Amino acid sequence: MGERVAFIGLGVMGAPMAGHLAKAGHEVWVFNRTRGKAEGWFAAYGEGRAVKVAGSPAEAAAGARLVFACVGADQDVRAVTLGEEGAFAGMAEGAIFVDHTTTSADLARELAGAAAARGLGFVDAPVSGGQAGAENGVLTIMAGGSEADFAIARPVMACYARQARLLGPAGSGQLAKMVNQICIAGIVQGLAEALNFALEAGLDAKAVVEVISGGAAQSWQMDNRAGTMIDGKFDFGFAVDWMRKDLGFCLGEARRLGVSLPVTALVDQFYGDVQAAGGGRWDTSSLTTRLRR
Amino acid sequence: MGERVAFIGLGVMGAPMAGHLAKAGHEVWVFNRTRGKAEGWFAAYGEGRAVKVAGSPAEAAAGARLVFACVGADQDVRAVTLGEEGAFAGMAEGAIFVDHTTTSADLARELAGAAAARGLGFVDAPVSGGQAGAENGVLTIMAGGSEADFAIARPVMACYARQARLLGPAGSGQLAKMVNQICIAGIVQGLAEALNFALEAGLDAKAVVEVISGGAAQSWQMDNRAGTMIDGKFDFGFAVDWMRKDLGFCLGEARRLGVSLPVTALVDQFYGDVQAAGGGRWDTSSLTTRLRR
Repeated sequence: MGERVAFIGLGVMGAPMAGHLAKAGHEVWVFNRTRGKAEGWFAAYGEGRAVKVAGSPAEAAAGARLVFACVGADQDVRAVTLGEEGAFAGMAEGAIFVDHTTTSADLARELAGAAAARGLGFVDAPVSGGQAGAENGVLTIMAGGSEADFAIARPVMACYARQARLLGPAGSGQLAKMVNQICIAGIVQGLAEALNFALEAGLDAKAVVEVISGGAAQSWQMDNRAGTMIDGKFDFGFAVDWMRKDLGFCLGEARRLGVSLPVTALVDQFYGDVQAAGGGRWDTSSLTTRLRR
Repeated sequence: MGERVAFIGLGVMGAPMAGHLAKAGHEVWVFNRTRGKAEGWFAAYGEGRAVKVAGSPAEAAAGARLVFACVGADQDVRAVTLGEEGAFAGMAEGAIFVDHTTTSADLARELAGAAAARGLGFVDAPVSGGQAGAENGVLTIMAGGSEADFAIARPVMACYARQARLLGPAGSGQLAKMVNQICIAGIVQGLAEALNFALEAGLDAKAVVEVISGGAAQSWQMDNRAGTMIDGKFDFGFAVDWMRKDLGFCLGEARRLGVSLPVTALVDQFYGDVQAAGGGRWDTSSLTTRLRR
């Protein structure tokens, strides 16, 4: 049933994703820049399974039809794909690189071109659903690439995704992820302003949320974050540092397209305030902290 | 079963609300500034029922324990409560005025004081759920006032509300409605920026919405307005003119409280752009129109 695959990057997202592949019976060769992390992953998922810790991306990728990656930023994806020890150097013709990292759309387009020049496939496939989604195998995948490559990757990605959809050519997955983050920026700032207003006006903010969450002000963020925002609890979730990285991609792409993102740009600055106050690791909902007196 | 009540203001919200009271068997005396509207309401709801078109708010209110109003703005509420022909002049001691109009919190506090000075009760009770919610009798009511007054009003308001909650003293209902509108301002602008970005980037925006609406970017606005925003359809729903009125209350109250509402203030300006472009009657989701090229 299982097939030989590679997974590069065993962070909070990659480790459980690669774990789901191993548990499903795939022969997973893994690589992580810090080797200790890969050995920790092996201890958690490897015993009695057909998995191996590789010494380089190229070694992990050699012999795999599908090579997955989930690393930090554009330069990290470049490091594990291009160059002498990169995955592209080890991949056989027809193999497909699936990048789950959230990157710029430009990088996805560039790597799709570099892959094609070597007879390789490339799918940009950023995810949403966070650490819990990765651990529970219920991520959502927004993909860009060819239908043929996506069709091969899809059943394997189903090990850790509840939903995967091809949204267009290379870069489309990254653009769709940007759409997601732009929505969240507006929602979270609106919710932060509203909850801070409620508290300063002397209202029972949780009671107000209960009343309004059944109507036109409802959002996933209200349902899942209003309570912790009111309590001032931010030591969990999706970090401000990562959100700023993603909003940087949104603003860069918008500049290229000549598209206006006024509130997204402003909220990006507010996240900068949160970082400056030492909140880079706090959850995205911590925008309230710069409003409190 | 029914009791003698009054309803003042038979607009798109008030007419069906008063209609639900009549259908439930209450003896409803109505007043509307433009008498023709009240006669139209009588033709729709009055035949064979114990209802009457009154010549003034005072006449409608005389003999009613509960006097409801749903009019346009602060000055309209002042006109139907205070003064010689106002409801307060006709109400018997112990009667309660329930204001469903969205107003400033200051007006609610002022009228609560004026009512108390005459031995009357006052409940500010703005609603959400829109015209459809009024017609289907499933509004949400955010109330401010005394527990005793609210307890008397609540079973009667159940004729047109699915949910009613007392959130504190006079003005608290208006403040809660402001919290609701602040949330919506951020959500709709974020969604507008995201959908415009998606279209300009060449994505199938409806497909992207299908994918991301299961996660952290989800909102009632996305579920109910993304499709019409993509199609550029705005001739329905909650008008920009009304939203600006409400955001004016939010910003005024925030100024009084010394609370920062940076994105709400910006979105209020954007709604001003939509008005200037002739879109005052368009749905709140029309913020996309000022982003399109």
